Amino acid sequence: MGLFSKDIKSMNDLFVHTLRDVYYAENQISKTLPDMIKKATDPELKNALTTHLGETENQIARLEEVFRMHGAQVKGVDCPAIDGIIDESDDIAGEVADKTVLDAALIAAAQAVEHYEMTRYGTLIAWAEQLGRRDCASMLQKTLEEEKAADRKLTAIAESRVNTKASNKASAAAR
Amino acid sequence: MGLFSKDIKSMNDLFVHTLRDVYYAENQISKTLPDMIKKATDPELKNALTTHLGETENQIARLEEVFRMHGAQVKGVDCPAIDGIIDESDDIAGEVADKTVLDAALIAAAQAVEHYEMTRYGTLIAWAEQLGRRDCASMLQKTLEEEKAADRKLTAIAESRVNTKASNKASAAAR
Repeated sequence: MGLFSKDIKSMNDLFVHTLRDVYYAENQISKTLPDMIKKATDPELKNALTTHLGETENQIARLEEVFRMHGAQVKGVDCPAIDGIIDESDDIAGEVADKTVLDAALIAAAQAVEHYEMTRYGTLIAWAEQLGRRDCASMLQKTLEEEKAADRKLTAIAESRVNTKASNKASAAAR
Repeated sequence: MGLFSKDIKSMNDLFVHTLRDVYYAENQISKTLPDMIKKATDPELKNALTTHLGETENQIARLEEVFRMHGAQVKGVDCPAIDGIIDESDDIAGEVADKTVLDAALIAAAQAVEHYEMTRYGTLIAWAEQLGRRDCASMLQKTLEEEKAADRKLTAIAESRVNTKASNKASAAAR
């Protein structure tokens, strides 16, 4: 991005810029998920992350379709937000020794990623509708629903399995 | 954070680490909001951001209370995620010339911040409950409700005012 130029002049420019931001983000996520899957030990978590990797690949294809529908060039722009979220996830994963605590940290990291995507897709859908692009909004809505479902699944896994195991282990160690 | 040590050994360590992450984040947000308030032109948006600055200051005090309740030292740790989200907000704001489009970009940036906070508080509440700290969970829940309300308010402003004005202007310019 050119920091000294004013490249975004209209809502349409802002919409296309943000599509490119989330396109970069989804691509970074698809590169990061395999490492998270490898680190996860809880089978249900491993499975949820693997499913989400498949969804992410579909979401990338769906974004490419939205670019085409809107007549904009398919490309990414730097997204310091997702880079920061992924860096933080890597840093924390590197600091956790216990496997079950690591699973809890991985869930939290994946949910931070989901929430970033949810806010960006929510924004893009609102802007697409304002710009009269119901067709683009409808495509983006499918992805938003998938992100929300992935977030709910991670919450359910956290609540039912990983946290209980990890805090039981912590209590046992403290006794 | 020490990248080559394994400093997080238990769920309790992970909980305290994440409290410090969000404490750093809230402090960064309280430094950033005044600049966003200055840039915003829509009076309702300016007002919502100003209200949220006051809430953020209360949320910082509430986190300090949670640290004390839990017997942990009040301090922040680097949070590359919020730094990335804020950097991206600054970059985009620097690229937008039109005031109304800038308002739309500011709302999107503020919502990305809210969603980061929502995911972190959601995680902290789940972990506090698992650790048997209902008292901490209850304090953190108050903040989560405020973040969700702030996010809903921004969505309402975006839908009712800013986006319509900006896209009307874009359509007028295209005619």
